[in-house]
Formats: sequence, C-alpha cells, structure tokens
Amino acid sequence: MKYAVLATWKMALEGTKKAASLLAAGEHCGKAIVEGVCMVEDEPSFHSVGYGGRPNAEGRVFLDGGYMDGDSLHFGAVGSIENFRSPVRIAYSLQEGEANNLLVGEGAERYAEEHGFERRNNLTAEAEQLYLEEKDRIKELSAYDGHDTVCFLALDQNGTLCAATSTSGLFMKKPGRLGDTPLPGVGYYADSAYGAAAATGMGEEIMKGALSYAAVQYLRQGRSAREAAETAVNELDAELRRRNGQAAAMSLIVLAKDGTYGIGTNVSFTYCFASESEEAAVHEITV
Amino acid sequence: MKYAVLATWKMALEGTKKAASLLAAGEHCGKAIVEGVCMVEDEPSFHSVGYGGRPNAEGRVFLDGGYMDGDSLHFGAVGSIENFRSPVRIAYSLQEGEANNLLVGEGAERYAEEHGFERRNNLTAEAEQLYLEEKDRIKELSAYDGHDTVCFLALDQNGTLCAATSTSGLFMKKPGRLGDTPLPGVGYYADSAYGAAAATGMGEEIMKGALSYAAVQYLRQGRSAREAAETAVNELDAELRRRNGQAAAMSLIVLAKDGTYGIGTNVSFTYCFASESEEAAVHEITV
Repeated sequence: MKYAVLATWKMALEGTKKAASLLAAGEHCGKAIVEGVCMVEDEPSFHSVGYGGRPNAEGRVFLDGGYMDGDSLHFGAVGSIENFRSPVRIAYSLQEGEANNLLVGEGAERYAEEHGFERRNNLTAEAEQLYLEEKDRIKELSAYDGHDTVCFLALDQNGTLCAATSTSGLFMKKPGRLGDTPLPGVGYYADSAYGAAAATGMGEEIMKGALSYAAVQYLRQGRSAREAAETAVNELDAELRRRNGQAAAMSLIVLAKDGTYGIGTNVSFTYCFASESEEAAVHEITV
Repeated sequence: MKYAVLATWKMALEGTKKAASLLAAGEHCGKAIVEGVCMVEDEPSFHSVGYGGRPNAEGRVFLDGGYMDGDSLHFGAVGSIENFRSPVRIAYSLQEGEANNLLVGEGAERYAEEHGFERRNNLTAEAEQLYLEEKDRIKELSAYDGHDTVCFLALDQNGTLCAATSTSGLFMKKPGRLGDTPLPGVGYYADSAYGAAAATGMGEEIMKGALSYAAVQYLRQGRSAREAAETAVNELDAELRRRNGQAAAMSLIVLAKDGTYGIGTNVSFTYCFASESEEAAVHEITV
C-alpha cells in the first residue's frame, strides 16, 4: 500500500524519517506526523519552532500549532501558549469533541495543564541572546526575521490524509499575535477525498487568501498537486502585488490523495519528502 | 451610485439602518459597518454579542471580532478579550500594518488598553442569572445555545466591499475558545473584485470548510450571490453529514460587487438588508 509524508524546511528531515517509518509500519497518518513535528519542536537549533523558538517583542516564547484529520475534517489547534513542550500534541488532542477545538492564550494553557501535557521553558540562552541583540534594531517585521513554520502532511496506508503544524511565530511579534499556523483552512487543511496542504511564510499574507483551503479546492477541481500548489500561491502573490505593490514570503506544500505532491513558493524553499518508494530526503527550490 | 448593506439576524435592523444612512451619505463601507456592528454590541437585550453577551463555562464574557477590507485584503481581528466595549472597533484598528493583525487574549487586551479603547464589563445581571441557572444543565454545546454572531457586509459608493463580525461566542464555551468569527477567510472575507461573505452558526463546523472564503471563490467563478451562498453552505453541510452523520447550524450571507445578495443556511434564519433602492428591513428564511 502507498504512503507518503511531505514536510516544510530541511529541519524536518529527521522528523520525516520518523514519520515515514511509522507510516511504513501501518500507523495512522496523524500519529505519524505528530511524532515528526514533535522532533522538530524538541530540537533547540531550529529557531522558529518549539524549544529554541524565537521570542516575541517582550522576549518571551509563545507557540502555535494545528492538526486536521482529512477523514472527519475535525481539527484541533492552540495559539499563543507559553511554557509547554509540544503545541502539536496539544492540538492533536483537541480534535476530540464537537466544540472548543481551537483554544488560545491562558485558556489553552489551562487546558494543557489539566490534561497533563508536559511543561517546558522554551526560551534558550541562544534565543534570549538573539533577542537582546536585535530588539532595538528590528523595526519592521518580515517573514525571514524568523517565521519558518514546520508543517507535515501525510497519507497513510488506509488512504487517510492529515496535516499538522507548529511554530513560535514571527520573531518579535506582538503579545497575543496569531499567524496562520493554528487556523484551519488557512495554515493547514486536509480532506482525504482530495489531499492536504499547509503553509509557511508571512502568516498575515497567507491569511488574506485561506491558502491551504484554496489549494485543496484546486485538487478537488481535478488539478495535479503541483498545479494546485503553484496556482494557489501564484494567484495570491499576484493579487497582493496588484493591490498593495508587494507580497511577502509564502510557501505551500500540497500532498494529493494518490501520494503525489507539489510545492508553491515565491521564495527559495527547502522541503522533505518520503514515500514507500522514496527515501526521506531534502529537496530545494531556488527562486 | 449603488450601495448596499447586508447583516445577520433581525437584531441587526437598527445597525443596518445606521450603516445604510452612512453609505447613502458617501461614507466608506468599513466605517459604516463598524457603526452598525457597534450598535448591536451595545444593546444588552442581544445575548450573543458584546454587552449582555453570554458567558463562558466560568461565567465570564469573552468577545471576538473581525474586519476585512476588500480593496487591500487587509484584515484586523481580536479573539478572547474581556472587559472592552467593542471588539469590532479594536479589530478595525488592527487592519493597519503588515503584521500583528490578529491578536488574542491578554496581548489583545493590552493592545486595546494602550490604544485607548473603551473598557466595559459586558456581563449583565440577566446573563449572569442565565449562566447560574444553566451551568449545571448544559452538557453538550450546540449553536443555538447561543451563537448568533452579528456580521455586516457592505458595498459603498466607491465600489469597495468589506466585512465585519462580532460575537461573545458559544454559550458555556471553554476559556480561550475561538470560533470562526475572528478568523479571516473562515468567519468573514471580502474582495472588492468579487464580493464579501460572513458566517454565523457553529463556528467549529464553519472552520471545517473556510466557509466565507469558499463563497467568495464561487462569486469569482461567475456564480450569482445566491448560488455562491447556497452552494457553499449546502456543500459543507453535505460533506459533514456524509463524514460525521450530522452537521450543526450554519448560515452565510453573501454580497456581490453589483449589490445583489444571497443567503445560504441549513437552519431558519433572519437577516437585514438595505440599499439605495430598498429600505432597511428584516427578512426571514424558514427551513
């Protein structure tokens, strides 16, 4: 049977290997990618996710994460939480139930506490040092001041597709800021009938075009994963340039139900892919 | 020149009249609908928005709101804020700037405080009494336990379209819960090239299909406002029933760039409309 996993940025390589091995063993795609994302969250040398993530304007690390199951369309997500190890694990648990699936701030932290999720101070000495050096210099935020969201998509051997995301958000973001990462349809979307998609880049731009949902709709209309990804990004990029004279960085990964994939991006971008016939590897697109 | 305003629920009638009078005088659609939404927020007899809004599971009133400008695609939004008069006014102000446009929780409250937004305890004696009576009875949340989001859409005399939303969210929601109302593309979307849309009902269902964005894409594909609204709701309703055996309440208002409008709903629904040729009035759809 077929399986496949697609993830944003080269930092996802070890997680991609892990997820692929779980998929090869017949595991559900959701459990496989949560393990993959969590490996990225736990690595302090990756500066945009989890432990070692970049601080906000007050030098504190707040995290966002999301998860969606393509069979039920159920999702779970957390936004703006501090001092927990793994937003993606909390998000995954929140898919249960018909309401209260997206929790933010103090309420989300209390949920995580009450449900026994592991706590962790995610501010590393290195991230704190960076914050102290840069906080007076940075006047204008841009995606590459540190918004490299980790996103994993997977197809499992039962034909289920799912999506998971995790980020510390924009470096120097304002307290309480959410980007696209915790928002279903925007930062991630999965529908086992067609495919899954997830986004990284400047969240506020991605939010102007429900980018992940848009790409899955192109799959639904019969386009290939490559066409769906490229069309969704290129159209939003063009609309933003036409209206505002510019478009910030956006990259989108798309995995179709047949295990084929596509990438849309308006900047240079690395990603990881593995499948039943392809070893986990980093790929690069240069723009 | 043409103008039009469309709003959810009969509670929006006075606000619709106000917005229509501002549009008739040539005002920008954003300013007009923020005034309209704020009239609903200020009225304590409306139990799902602003002052008099329904409390969460701990008896506290937390509010969400969003705003989107169809010319620039810029948006502003707040989620899970307590003790401010008007989430829609705060959301409107957050459209400025290229980042930090969606703020939640304590960070959003501090933004509002620093920018001089009016504070207010939104818990009325009546809402507190309801909470005390119902808190032990309500085990399962449903949209009609109190999720009647106010949404306004408008077309102004310059051809600009915009969308604004405000809600206290689901009665007895968990602390930190966000629904669709503050999420661009999900609870509201506006693109002056095609039209605008906004949703009310069970937020967690609406979030499974980026409902407002989906409807505007149908306009873009050349469908009428009526077809766009009905197709978006009916398709998501059918997908949810097929996968999960049920679909909760969802209603969607759509205003096209030519001033025509459409409604999609899977429950009985009231709305308000006014234009240069039509006095503000309440309309009803019985399902």
